[in-house]
Amino acid sequence: MAVITVLGAGMMGSALCVPLVDRGHEVRLVGTHLDGAIIESLQAGHFHPTMKLDLPAAIRPYPAEALPAAMEGAELVALGVSSAGIDWATSQLAPFARPGLPIVMITKGLELREGRLGVLPDRVQRGLPEAVRDTVFPAAIAGPCIAGELARRVPTCVVVTGRDAGTLARLAEALRGPYYHVFPCADVIGAEVSAALKNAYAMGVAFGVGLHEKAGGVAGSVAMHNWESAVFAQAIREMMRVTALLGGDPLTVTGLPGVGDLDVTMNGGRTGRFGRWLGLGLGVAASVARMEGATLECLEILAVMREGLAAHEARGELRPGELPLLRQMMAVALDDAPVAMPFERFFAEGAG
Amino acid sequence: MAVITVLGAGMMGSALCVPLVDRGHEVRLVGTHLDGAIIESLQAGHFHPTMKLDLPAAIRPYPAEALPAAMEGAELVALGVSSAGIDWATSQLAPFARPGLPIVMITKGLELREGRLGVLPDRVQRGLPEAVRDTVFPAAIAGPCIAGELARRVPTCVVVTGRDAGTLARLAEALRGPYYHVFPCADVIGAEVSAALKNAYAMGVAFGVGLHEKAGGVAGSVAMHNWESAVFAQAIREMMRVTALLGGDPLTVTGLPGVGDLDVTMNGGRTGRFGRWLGLGLGVAASVARMEGATLECLEILAVMREGLAAHEARGELRPGELPLLRQMMAVALDDAPVAMPFERFFAEGAG
Ligand SMILES: NC(=O)c1ccc[n+]([C@@H]2O[C@H](COP(=O)([O-])OP(=O)(O)OC[C@H]3O[C@@H](n4cnc5c(N)ncnc54)[C@H](O)[C@@H]3O)[C@@H](O)[C@H]2O)c1
Ligand SMILES: NC(=O)c1ccc[n+]([C@@H]2O[C@H](COP(=O)([O-])OP(=O)(O)OC[C@H]3O[C@@H](n4cnc5c(N)ncnc54)[C@H](O)[C@@H]3O)[C@@H](O)[C@H]2O)c1
Repeated sequence: MAVITVLGAGMMGSALCVPLVDRGHEVRLVGTHLDGAIIESLQAGHFHPTMKLDLPAAIRPYPAEALPAAMEGAELVALGVSSAGIDWATSQLAPFARPGLPIVMITKGLELREGRLGVLPDRVQRGLPEAVRDTVFPAAIAGPCIAGELARRVPTCVVVTGRDAGTLARLAEALRGPYYHVFPCADVIGAEVSAALKNAYAMGVAFGVGLHEKAGGVAGSVAMHNWESAVFAQAIREMMRVTALLGGDPLTVTGLPGVGDLDVTMNGGRTGRFGRWLGLGLGVAASVARMEGATLECLEILAVMREGLAAHEARGELRPGELPLLRQMMAVALDDAPVAMPFERFFAEGAG
Repeated sequence: MAVITVLGAGMMGSALCVPLVDRGHEVRLVGTHLDGAIIESLQAGHFHPTMKLDLPAAIRPYPAEALPAAMEGAELVALGVSSAGIDWATSQLAPFARPGLPIVMITKGLELREGRLGVLPDRVQRGLPEAVRDTVFPAAIAGPCIAGELARRVPTCVVVTGRDAGTLARLAEALRGPYYHVFPCADVIGAEVSAALKNAYAMGVAFGVGLHEKAGGVAGSVAMHNWESAVFAQAIREMMRVTALLGGDPLTVTGLPGVGDLDVTMNGGRTGRFGRWLGLGLGVAASVARMEGATLECLEILAVMREGLAAHEARGELRPGELPLLRQMMAVALDDAPVAMPFERFFAEGAG
């Protein structure tokens, strides 16, 4: 068994610790400078305040300033921060990176760099010291995983993806356990495009919930599910298109990172609530205000995508009529346009 | 505008009439011998008793025995029966089939014929008189469509699929309207495999609802959604595999007929209830009994698939380890095996 250090004690970073201690690893959970209250609570009695759950006592909590101690002898590092924290986490980790260290992140997002959309494992790699950059290949976890469920040991299937097959095999072997099924996935582009975009598309599907309520409907088995499922199918097709645009394999989207993760995200959670408010017609400002400061990864990724798509389009790699759903979501969630789905422009490459 | 005759006044056949009358077609809805009470109720006051909804007065209801009158001048025929009624409906229709008559069905299912799984439009075609068999190419509708929602004019996207591109173009043009978006799909194998199998797979996803309740859980945003979404993703992968096995295009599954329809089917309805009871551990007999006589298309298709897969396997076209989810669902729903998902055998061809 190994010594594993997890940096970032948010919900998902902390949830990941549960299958790891259950596997018998020594697990050290290090808070960021924003996680002080979480670490104190874990130290006081193993209770995770944002997940609202007692965690196994075997998980060892460390405050941010104890990172050097937590990294001593670490054989595997997991980054548990959200995209806003990824550069910070990389810089924290950099002094401790030794050749061949397996690094895995749970962060979802894409970066825009020199006019091209790219994946976060590549960004983390660029932030590591030159001396290790040819032996450390950061990987990422993607797939349908609600943190509170993994922490309750609900059977969960995910992929671990990155650029080095050997790293992926070692990570999958170290992470997997009786209820945490980890499949290596060589297509980091497809997996990370899916992981990043599913938040935005989940918001778009949830517009239908709000539209239904706005029309006086109540939740039930007859609502606007036809509308939502058409958007869901178009979302998968558009993630496949973006994946191909960035050089990945569209088939990756049909597995755990795309279909699986978009499906799981529709079960409540922030993104769904936010989409519902937009569907109800509250407008962006009022909808954001109701989220009480919660990070809205769907808005972050839409902003990155808008700029990125413009760049790819300018080079003729994408036609203006492509991705009609994504463009409509940008109009609604970034520009306050009314929710009107351009269904007649969906499935232009075939609906079957 | 055209004269359109719909044979079968169940929920979906009747719901289809709504966009058609709204388009200005003359729509004649003919009950089967089992639909007497529905037709009487529609004649008395436009109320559809099983959909529990008033239908537009412009839809003209006909009892079964008035089929000859209802077929007079019909320019398009829709079959609204479920798979148990497809041979009966074909034989009723046969005397009235003239060269080039467009026929479209909403029926979901597959047939097993001479050791091969096949699609229902081909079966209907074989049941037509020889004189029209080279000019009539029955088509089918697939995609996410809850009858009660279409009948309430909820925006809905479907495909119309079949073997003749000209027929599909004519059908799409005749059927589509402002809230009913109809996309032609040339891959009848992929669309019909998806349409038929989604009921079985929806049952499998719903096992997770029952398992969660059995473990004392309540419905909510933290439940066994990770479990369900992993099964959902594997379901899509397996529909793609069956589609390839039968010579269709796996990509069709990623659009409306597969991803879209499986998603919509998870919103309550019979199949979900039935899967939940199996997940709760009630066993097949008790679960069927609770369905109070409702047709369980998921069981019908599992029985057909079991026989069909055995035949394809015997010819070496399929390996015994393939389709682990489908085989597990057969074990649970046909043989009363306990619900134990073989996650470690999922995604054998790659999970991304
Ligand atoms: N919650 C889930 O079910 C889930 C599942 C899979 C993946 N994810 C992904 O995991 C990531 C974290 O999600 P979460 O739900 O745990 O969120 P969270 O808000 O609970 O945790 C966020 C973590 O990131 C850190 N962080 C945020 N901003 C930072 C900054 N500017 N500098 C440094 N650190 C910062 C926080 O301190 C905390 O450790 C996201 O990218 C999310 O998409 C979440
Ligand atoms: N309800 C939906 O939302 C929906 C959506 C898309 C497709 N479908 C498909 O449409 C078909 C019908 O579904 P439904 O929900 O309308 O069911 P239903 O029970 O309301 O209607 C079934 C129809 O088939 C006829 N029928 C049944 N058994 C018959 C037999 N042995 N001989 C002759 N006629 C028979 C009935 O008379 C009735 O007209 C199914 O294949 C279903 O999968 C349903």
